[in-house]
Amino acid sequence: MPAEAGRPEVFRDALLAAGVLLDGGGMGLMLRSGAFEDAARGVEMLMARQMAGDDAEVMMPPPAMPLRTLTRTGYMRSFPQLAGTISCFCGDEAGHRRLVASMEAGEDWTGQQEPSEVSMIPAACYLTYGQVAQRGPVAMDGKRVAVEAWCFRHEPSPDPCRMLMFRMRECVFYGTPDGAKAHRDQWLARMGEMAAMLQLPYTIEPANDPFFGRIGKIMARSQLELELKMELLIHVSDPVKPTACASVNLHLDSMGAKWGLETEDGAVAHTACGAYGIDRLTLALFRHHGPELSAWPAGVRAALWP
Amino acid sequence: MPAEAGRPEVFRDALLAAGVLLDGGGMGLMLRSGAFEDAARGVEMLMARQMAGDDAEVMMPPPAMPLRTLTRTGYMRSFPQLAGTISCFCGDEAGHRRLVASMEAGEDWTGQQEPSEVSMIPAACYLTYGQVAQRGPVAMDGKRVAVEAWCFRHEPSPDPCRMLMFRMRECVFYGTPDGAKAHRDQWLARMGEMAAMLQLPYTIEPANDPFFGRIGKIMARSQLELELKMELLIHVSDPVKPTACASVNLHLDSMGAKWGLETEDGAVAHTACGAYGIDRLTLALFRHHGPELSAWPAGVRAALWP
Repeated sequence: MPAEAGRPEVFRDALLAAGVLLDGGGMGLMLRSGAFEDAARGVEMLMARQMAGDDAEVMMPPPAMPLRTLTRTGYMRSFPQLAGTISCFCGDEAGHRRLVASMEAGEDWTGQQEPSEVSMIPAACYLTYGQVAQRGPVAMDGKRVAVEAWCFRHEPSPDPCRMLMFRMRECVFYGTPDGAKAHRDQWLARMGEMAAMLQLPYTIEPANDPFFGRIGKIMARSQLELELKMELLIHVSDPVKPTACASVNLHLDSMGAKWGLETEDGAVAHTACGAYGIDRLTLALFRHHGPELSAWPAGVRAALWP
Repeated sequence: MPAEAGRPEVFRDALLAAGVLLDGGGMGLMLRSGAFEDAARGVEMLMARQMAGDDAEVMMPPPAMPLRTLTRTGYMRSFPQLAGTISCFCGDEAGHRRLVASMEAGEDWTGQQEPSEVSMIPAACYLTYGQVAQRGPVAMDGKRVAVEAWCFRHEPSPDPCRMLMFRMRECVFYGTPDGAKAHRDQWLARMGEMAAMLQLPYTIEPANDPFFGRIGKIMARSQLELELKMELLIHVSDPVKPTACASVNLHLDSMGAKWGLETEDGAVAHTACGAYGIDRLTLALFRHHGPELSAWPAGVRAALWP
């Protein structure tokens, strides 16, 4: 499907014209067609097959989590601009009359909404650390969790690769420093194999997260230099600037220390994860193989729907 | 699995002890295990098979929608207490320092969050009316859409059947008054067939939505008297008070008028929907057939995973 440098709306409009996505009436909130969902499900199952021998425990959160989990992750320190929290109406009938009057006058009526105890999820793995920590020390040969979540990041954009909500599927490892490095290396290989099976041209490069503010710039540089984050890059909505469709992250002991995760020898656990962007990989498939699933290469179809 | 009248926490605690659900650290925000997700997927596919001959268009939204769609639905008029809207941080570095200081002091830091252009979804079908309306008049023999959404309703409860976020899968019909009634009758039959295939004891009863305030009481009575809403009731977390696990709704021309939906003869379209509560049906399966999928009756297993 077509794409143009610096104009992600060209690929978006092609997807809308082909009915692969439907305009949801707001930036980054497209509805997915049946064809899109069939491909997305195929990508999810391909990752699940890569993990067949991993003995990973499945933890599937709803698309929201307790606000205090968000507080504890420290996400608001590093990426405050991306997070979403949920507000609700807690008023009485008089308050409700004021709300309805605002609505009827075509005014902004959200001023009466109050912060609730719930937030959106910025990354799938955040839900798992507390779960694993509360079960006590992790075995020396480590533990793995499979988690998929609808994540929210507030960065409205015409780029279909930058949706407000998207599915991130991860395999998270908790264990020794060597175990975490082996997990990183395993997923570096797996994400390349996955891209090859799906016949998507790719490169793998060191990367950094979009930390907020001036101190954030220093954190980003350090992450890059230590090669703690490696991304699978594919040209999707832009033929010049590629999109990160999967990543492998080594957290060293940062998550272990934050969540009180230990290994059986009493040391702070190291963690690492392999993460697939289900919606971005699906978009990459449409970009490279066209809008008709039935016309995709036989090998790709076999990898998605064996 | 065990349940006790008036004490939904008994069933919840049994699910947690068996590892079917995991405590997500907040009321109504449990994580789903692999077994739970396998069963939920089976329910989804059973409904999809019931719809095999329907020629329904698939529209799958992310778990959020434009705030102005929520405004337009009129949901805040009828159920303001249940809706959720999303707030974000839009400040600069100075604002961020204040936010981090609040967090570090253990204070409520959400005061700096500002309303965004995005809301949660209260019911799956709301996303579809605008989509269908913008394509012009509906054919006289009607149109069907298949939609599943993660819905949000703010009613924190120890009852696992009353989660803050849950999956609702619907088949929505748009067409003539007779077409809408036929759709209602078809789904009345289908939801009974589905419960029978899953060997879940059920009744089907007229019901009403939980409208807000005094005027709401009148609306609820009218809905009940006209039998516009019929629910599939199953005993899940309470052996005395059953839970609505699916419903069939006749909207008459209320949605058609609100969204400017017409049939080809220029009349306001009538709409109706069959809706399955995927998470509640899954909970009903665990309640009646036990925590081990492999021990479920052969007929149930065949219906879920043919």
